[in-house]
Amino acid sequence: MAGRAAWACRAWRPPLRRRLDGPPRALAGAPPRRLFSGPAVQVELQEGAGVAVMKLKSPPVNSLSLELLTEFTISLEKLENDKACRGVILTSAVPHIFSAGLDITEMHGKSPEHYAEFWKAVQEMWLKLYKSSLGSSPAGGCLMALSCDYRIMAENPKYSIGLNETQLGIVAPFWFKDALVSTIGHRAAEQSLQLGLLYPASDALKVGLVDQLVPEERLQSAATQVMAQWLATPDHARQITKSMMRKEVVDRLLKHRDADIQNFVQFISRDSIQKSLQMYIERLKQRKT
Amino acid sequence: MAGRAAWACRAWRPPLRRRLDGPPRALAGAPPRRLFSGPAVQVELQEGAGVAVMKLKSPPVNSLSLELLTEFTISLEKLENDKACRGVILTSAVPHIFSAGLDITEMHGKSPEHYAEFWKAVQEMWLKLYKSSLGSSPAGGCLMALSCDYRIMAENPKYSIGLNETQLGIVAPFWFKDALVSTIGHRAAEQSLQLGLLYPASDALKVGLVDQLVPEERLQSAATQVMAQWLATPDHARQITKSMMRKEVVDRLLKHRDADIQNFVQFISRDSIQKSLQMYIERLKQRKT
Amino acid sequence: MAGRAAWACRAWRPPLRRRLDGPPRALAGAPPRRLFSGPAVQVELQEGAGVAVMKLKSPPVNSLSLELLTEFTISLEKLENDKACRGVILTSAVPHIFSAGLDITEMHGKSPEHYAEFWKAVQEMWLKLYKSSLGSSPAGGCLMALSCDYRIMAENPKYSIGLNETQLGIVAPFWFKDALVSTIGHRAAEQSLQLGLLYPASDALKVGLVDQLVPEERLQSAATQVMAQWLATPDHARQITKSMMRKEVVDRLLKHRDADIQNFVQFISRDSIQKSLQMYIERLKQRKT
Repeated sequence: MAGRAAWACRAWRPPLRRRLDGPPRALAGAPPRRLFSGPAVQVELQEGAGVAVMKLKSPPVNSLSLELLTEFTISLEKLENDKACRGVILTSAVPHIFSAGLDITEMHGKSPEHYAEFWKAVQEMWLKLYKSSLGSSPAGGCLMALSCDYRIMAENPKYSIGLNETQLGIVAPFWFKDALVSTIGHRAAEQSLQLGLLYPASDALKVGLVDQLVPEERLQSAATQVMAQWLATPDHARQITKSMMRKEVVDRLLKHRDADIQNFVQFISRDSIQKSLQMYIERLKQRKT
Repeated sequence: MAGRAAWACRAWRPPLRRRLDGPPRALAGAPPRRLFSGPAVQVELQEGAGVAVMKLKSPPVNSLSLELLTEFTISLEKLENDKACRGVILTSAVPHIFSAGLDITEMHGKSPEHYAEFWKAVQEMWLKLYKSSLGSSPAGGCLMALSCDYRIMAENPKYSIGLNETQLGIVAPFWFKDALVSTIGHRAAEQSLQLGLLYPASDALKVGLVDQLVPEERLQSAATQVMAQWLATPDHARQITKSMMRKEVVDRLLKHRDADIQNFVQFISRDSIQKSLQMYIERLKQRKT
Repeated sequence: MAGRAAWACRAWRPPLRRRLDGPPRALAGAPPRRLFSGPAVQVELQEGAGVAVMKLKSPPVNSLSLELLTEFTISLEKLENDKACRGVILTSAVPHIFSAGLDITEMHGKSPEHYAEFWKAVQEMWLKLYKSSLGSSPAGGCLMALSCDYRIMAENPKYSIGLNETQLGIVAPFWFKDALVSTIGHRAAEQSLQLGLLYPASDALKVGLVDQLVPEERLQSAATQVMAQWLATPDHARQITKSMMRKEVVDRLLKHRDADIQNFVQFISRDSIQKSLQMYIERLKQRKT
């Protein structure tokens, strides 16, 4: 069973015929079929319902490493090209966590070329996913969630979600910011990003960072239920609508993509930032011991 | 008496003298005078208060047909040129409904020229009204409401309001979207438009789609009361402020007006969309029998 | 003790070393040191905490006169250049009020040159402060508050906050509007500005115009507490984040600064506006007698 998890509802290249067939087939009852699996991501597809479940499986905390990001993006692309798939539920195979966010070790002690490659992978993932649903945890996990259509979080005061970059001495890029502002509004986003806030589940619901809280054991069924509502809308109209809603934010990143990579590389390569990250990594290690 | 109705508060070309005269004359007590009436819209003006009441009267559901839209826009223009009028309350003469929204029959089985003419009339109405108050019902009714300054809805769980285009397999244009985002924020608008949600009265209040719920028999008096508060602000300052608040959204439509018409015509002329609308019309007919 | 007050948390040119030193020194315990004081503004700095307290002291109501604005901007600049200062709490030395807002006498019966000079001073103050915390009262007081990072208001039903320009027959400029929309959202801002609403403390909290209400005697300690949370985030990352959040609004004013001054001078010089302001001033005088 997935941990604290999340789900995603994507609308892509939908078979137009289906749109005219009335409501979609029921999601329940269909036997799951294993589709494909790599070292960090596992994908199952419920053929009847047209819904895939993607699980991150990179213990201990599903850090968004270059490897995981790349595998994630490729898996999503495969699903987009699969006509049997109309939506995807995003969750975790690691207990009690969706993802700890961007992998800090990819941003420390490496070459500028590596930083650039990593950041590009983050951008790719986001651009692919910025039409999908829930993550829960620091930074990258939250970013994945913000890209989804709907966010469900386990009702547990120990779980939290947010973009905590400033706590590490680094800065969320403008497109993280844009996605956050679109979700919780400008004022809440400003406070959230300046302080690097991690919201406990109940606060996350209040501020609008997640849409629903459910007991941990009901995450998957709740996601399936909401997904059914989403897929009851004609795919084509919903897809155009979604793309209209997100066009401005997507276009801004596309326009400044290279500058954003350069900016990241330059910032992260600074001695002061590298020292700051090293301290953070050491603190994390001490916590584990 | 009006049904589920709505009201609007417009600020236009105000006699500047009045602004300096202190608070406006009381709205109550003034005898109503019939101003003018056409087949689909009826307008009364309370001379003393400077407030007009516009009632849609196109049974069974006040569908926004080309005829109604044209008459509506002309009536609004007349009121703008009438120095005795400072505000307008928008409501319905048909019981239990403000408007069912855009008339689907205008979008089905007609020529491209007709589609273009119809869409232009929708744009005209919106541009005129995007300085006014409440509608309640699918699509067009909601659009009228979103263009107003304040929205009052009858407190009845059977009544609903929203932009349900996607449910019909069509897509709300960007200026519907802009007006909705301005009213309920980006996140709520995204969910609302993707799913084509129709909000029951209490949900509409919660999400901010309407500003106030009152018992059906008090719609008109509540509208009159709020209008008095609106007109207590100096017209000139209020008008400039309103235009500053809405400039960006209005300018975007003005800039892309022709492209928006072409886009609508092309989309609505597709075989798949025409089939989708036909199915919807047939379902509506079956419901009536 | 300060009255109804406010506080501000600024992030500027932070000594980078400090960012790497872990959490900031405790705010409590450090003895305050008088830094500098002019006729309208008094500044104290808690050396240990790196926090300055700025108090407006221009009885009876701390009107934002040309003199106060100029002194305020200069004081803020001094603090920015002071490496011992990392944040500033903004409050009032006049009991029961933070500020009554822009000084109307600066906008009435003077020369166009004076109006231009005054408006430029308002812009300067705003541009400097649009990285800082609470005001409470009509117009200018609210504008100062909107420029801060966090707003604390005394829990007293007699106190209110808002931008009431339209009530005076004048119009809030687009950058007041932008800051308000960023804080409370577009819909609430539209209603607020059109009607020139002054929100009682509890409503101000509800709409999001202030972040916290506390008993009057706890204003300063609450501000100190929140400031500690703010300063626990690495200065550098927080500062870049803040500037990213506010860049669009700041850039818009910078781009249209001269046109905005000309626009103000032309508007305020009109006979009708001057008469309107005179009436308002006379009403204020009568209230005092």
